[in-house]
Amino acid sequence: MPELVLTTFDWVPEPPRGFVRDLRVRWALEEAGLSYRVESVPFEGRKPEHFAHQPFGQVPWLRDGDISIFESGAILLHLAEKSPGLMPADPRGRAEVIEWIFAALNSVEMASQPWALFRMMGFRGDTPSEKFFDDFLNVSRLPHLENVLKDREWIVGAFSAADILMADVLRLVDRFDGLKAFPACRAYVLRAMARPPFVKAHADQLAHFAAADRARAGR
Amino acid sequence: MPELVLTTFDWVPEPPRGFVRDLRVRWALEEAGLSYRVESVPFEGRKPEHFAHQPFGQVPWLRDGDISIFESGAILLHLAEKSPGLMPADPRGRAEVIEWIFAALNSVEMASQPWALFRMMGFRGDTPSEKFFDDFLNVSRLPHLENVLKDREWIVGAFSAADILMADVLRLVDRFDGLKAFPACRAYVLRAMARPPFVKAHADQLAHFAAADRARAGR
Repeated sequence: MPELVLTTFDWVPEPPRGFVRDLRVRWALEEAGLSYRVESVPFEGRKPEHFAHQPFGQVPWLRDGDISIFESGAILLHLAEKSPGLMPADPRGRAEVIEWIFAALNSVEMASQPWALFRMMGFRGDTPSEKFFDDFLNVSRLPHLENVLKDREWIVGAFSAADILMADVLRLVDRFDGLKAFPACRAYVLRAMARPPFVKAHADQLAHFAAADRARAGR
Repeated sequence: MPELVLTTFDWVPEPPRGFVRDLRVRWALEEAGLSYRVESVPFEGRKPEHFAHQPFGQVPWLRDGDISIFESGAILLHLAEKSPGLMPADPRGRAEVIEWIFAALNSVEMASQPWALFRMMGFRGDTPSEKFFDDFLNVSRLPHLENVLKDREWIVGAFSAADILMADVLRLVDRFDGLKAFPACRAYVLRAMARPPFVKAHADQLAHFAAADRARAGR
């Protein structure tokens, strides 16, 4: 099997640590029990080679032999094709995991990311546009997701790649105390974060950036 | 082959017409030359059966035999697996189409939808939060996409499902004159909209909602 190489930033400021999207890929690789290596690209001064792998200058990307894939959703789907622990092989099971992968990224995160960015920047939801995004998340999305999760341990039967993405999306909402009114969503996030593959992935990301701090201090 | 059934709303108000997401599915079905039937659910008074197919109460969903799939991205990927006109079969070609499907929905639309919603609601970009989303689209996303599209007819070689999603995402930006500074993006949208499968899909969606107006007027 060709080597899997995950690329992330060499360093990021404190606030996004633990939430940089290489975490989703690390978590999936740990769940699948696939071995991999981590490489870094400069956070400051992004080069043409970086844009050749990730056209928006973001991270992560994954190299699998001669294929290089960007977008955390695409990478997780690629890994899920290799691992029954991330996606079942039967057509119905596959379809359910794939629809919930897109739901996490295009229905829930579409609402949660603006909401979280507003909180991160200290906006208090007191302009019409901020109120709009508050409702988008708290009226149009989370109550429906709460209904789905209240009777389920994982989003489609057994744990899957869809849970990695949905839990990671909700984890950022929880960081800003946004799940208090949605106990099933909050319990789901905590359940996902208690999984040893998440714990390892999270610790590995923090250690990667802490090592970068030490290297900077020493140079 | 089992029958394909696309479900959309029975009626929507004027503003979203031509942009309801069943368009993406109609367009893909027309590109693939697959026959299908359209069914409707009430826009007003959404029922439990609706939420059973689409947990957020949105449209579209697609039934393919005994499988029912929601999320336009998931539906397009499902159809792309059936049609070489939507996605090549080789591993590298598949990976490229899939990463750009996610890029359209999780990198570009994540920035373009808040921007377009602000325009739709008449916000003028004069609060810090509105300014933030203006930059998210116009600094962090579209210049990079412009770089990608300036030398390409379609996003990954031949036309694919990724172009349906990317062009549809950009089409909403163009509706609010947001592509003036990005001529390659604008030319790409116009090229996509000139394809006969888009023209038919768009006309069919408008005719579907116009028929609903006539039924309402007559009842």
